Amino acid sequence: MTTNAALYPAERLTVVAAAVREAGLSALLLTPGPDLRYVTGYDAKQLERLTCLAVPAVGDPFLLVPRLELAAAQASPASGLGIETVAWGETESPFGIMKERLGPLGSVALSDRMWALHVLQFRDAFPGARQELASTVLSPLRIRKTPAEVSALREAGEAIDRVHAQVPGWLRAGRTEREVGARIAEAILAQGHVQVDFVIVASGPNAASPHHDVSDRVLDDGDVVVVDIGGTMPSGYCSDCTRMYAIGRPPADFAAYYEVLREAQESACEAVRPAVTAEAVDRAARDIIAKAGYGDWFIHRTGHGIGLESHEDPYIVEGNTTELAPGMAFSVEPGIYPGPHGARIEDILVCTATGYERLNNATRDLVIV
Amino acid sequence: MTTNAALYPAERLTVVAAAVREAGLSALLLTPGPDLRYVTGYDAKQLERLTCLAVPAVGDPFLLVPRLELAAAQASPASGLGIETVAWGETESPFGIMKERLGPLGSVALSDRMWALHVLQFRDAFPGARQELASTVLSPLRIRKTPAEVSALREAGEAIDRVHAQVPGWLRAGRTEREVGARIAEAILAQGHVQVDFVIVASGPNAASPHHDVSDRVLDDGDVVVVDIGGTMPSGYCSDCTRMYAIGRPPADFAAYYEVLREAQESACEAVRPAVTAEAVDRAARDIIAKAGYGDWFIHRTGHGIGLESHEDPYIVEGNTTELAPGMAFSVEPGIYPGPHGARIEDILVCTATGYERLNNATRDLVIV
Repeated sequence: MTTNAALYPAERLTVVAAAVREAGLSALLLTPGPDLRYVTGYDAKQLERLTCLAVPAVGDPFLLVPRLELAAAQASPASGLGIETVAWGETESPFGIMKERLGPLGSVALSDRMWALHVLQFRDAFPGARQELASTVLSPLRIRKTPAEVSALREAGEAIDRVHAQVPGWLRAGRTEREVGARIAEAILAQGHVQVDFVIVASGPNAASPHHDVSDRVLDDGDVVVVDIGGTMPSGYCSDCTRMYAIGRPPADFAAYYEVLREAQESACEAVRPAVTAEAVDRAARDIIAKAGYGDWFIHRTGHGIGLESHEDPYIVEGNTTELAPGMAFSVEPGIYPGPHGARIEDILVCTATGYERLNNATRDLVIV
Repeated sequence: MTTNAALYPAERLTVVAAAVREAGLSALLLTPGPDLRYVTGYDAKQLERLTCLAVPAVGDPFLLVPRLELAAAQASPASGLGIETVAWGETESPFGIMKERLGPLGSVALSDRMWALHVLQFRDAFPGARQELASTVLSPLRIRKTPAEVSALREAGEAIDRVHAQVPGWLRAGRTEREVGARIAEAILAQGHVQVDFVIVASGPNAASPHHDVSDRVLDDGDVVVVDIGGTMPSGYCSDCTRMYAIGRPPADFAAYYEVLREAQESACEAVRPAVTAEAVDRAARDIIAKAGYGDWFIHRTGHGIGLESHEDPYIVEGNTTELAPGMAFSVEPGIYPGPHGARIEDILVCTATGYERLNNATRDLVIV
């Protein structure tokens, strides 16, 4: 298994500090979440009590933590970074401490998932400082996965593939989506994830709603079922994979557009290589679907980046002219939802020096149970 | 079971709109999270794509959702509120739509858990508007639970009590904290929660770290173990309860401070009644612990409110002069952590017209397994 030391190298903090200076920022402020984990390896809980890594342009980074999180912080990979850990007591103001330590700031970048609760307290603590998003400095780093990160995503892909391999055994007429979803959730954990991120079991008419969750609808003969599932591995890296199932013979009109979808998904994957834009991959799928007359029923982007978050840069969407580069990892998941059913096929891909590697390898044929 | 209709009454939106006007705000903007669920019953996922309920001081509230979440929003309790649902397409700007619909704003209140990603985009979309926290209008409402909310918290309390009842069967010398934690997590779901919020199994020296999680430490004879667990029920309401266990005979010095802790926790509970301040409840516990000479080892506040969030107002902490009132629900959880072990006892209480109701009722004696 990919080790924490390989995934979260100590030298990353130096790279990030340089990026902060280069961006002309006074400081980067990261509360618990994927940005903090990326920089330090510390998988801290997001709480009302402020935990914050400060990376100033001038001076040394430090980690401010509530006193009762001190032991957890010291036991985390962040303790290996050689930075000072500052604990604040239950009746102190952590924002006062930040102000005292950092002095007046010109501009600060805040982790994208920082709560408004903290954003507005930082605004008040540093009234002159322009607030920006941490992604302005971190996204260019996070978007290109290291070999260790690709390994972690590969392990995640294999884990979710093992779950899909079990799904045919659970899809039976007479069961509810919720019952099937509960089995899938258990399997996501049993196959090595530490967290279930989402379980979509969208059967019959629910298959026409891309972000349907699970419901009490009872599966019936002739249903097609979208199963879109994902979780987070101990490494912090996420899985996400969609496959299509049918309970007995699917509706007659389904086969026609499912073939189109297969071809669109395949073409979009084939389009992936360095220097191709994200929107070109979207277009590769969309053109085929539109040409076949289903364009109005492909109502979402083709994909999203994946890593420490299920959804991150690069987004595979019209208007995103980001050029793909080796190490970028993202989903390719076109869908067609004409109603009263629908379909989506999704794999995670990594852009390589010459093309792509697919991280999900279960059959993309319609699986009839 | 408490129904959604009772928990999330449609008239709440009217009350909230009145509070927005009364606070002199131009609008309240709620992204997915506990604030949105409180106002509409809609349990939406927090995503990079903007979902936002707008409650303007002038004009009708509306719910903006990504087009691919439209079916989910329409299937949610929010659809029963008689408000307009506006869908934005994958290549549109949701902030542009908000700007067009709301016009210039003087001040806006944002849900406390809104991501910086959206906070800063709202700042740019409404450059003149002063941003405030939604809690300024919602906390005074959310802090006093309705009878239906108290029922939901009572059900949560009973569910987590059933988990604690099983814990002695899993605590065995030779097992790791992680193994025990996995069984507890399964039981939290099996006993009716839909989500595991946290599982602390802090054994031996780890018991001295209040927010220890689980580790690979192997349980040993003579260990004391802090088990602090909680989850979210289908209603959206949370449980949270801490009990103390020992594997065989506990260390000699443990018994002395555990008795002090029992008394402190009991006294703090007894202090709960209307018009008593939150800090007075904290002091009731703290005075006893300090008097017994353990004051330096009680390093956190006595408690936190609970409802749709595990931690919310009112915080039971020095400096919080909020007067308790019927319907307020919160934890009472003093702790003593002298090392190389520690202890905490936690119940959820609801303030009643004459005193309090305790929602956790498993024995508070040290359970020796």
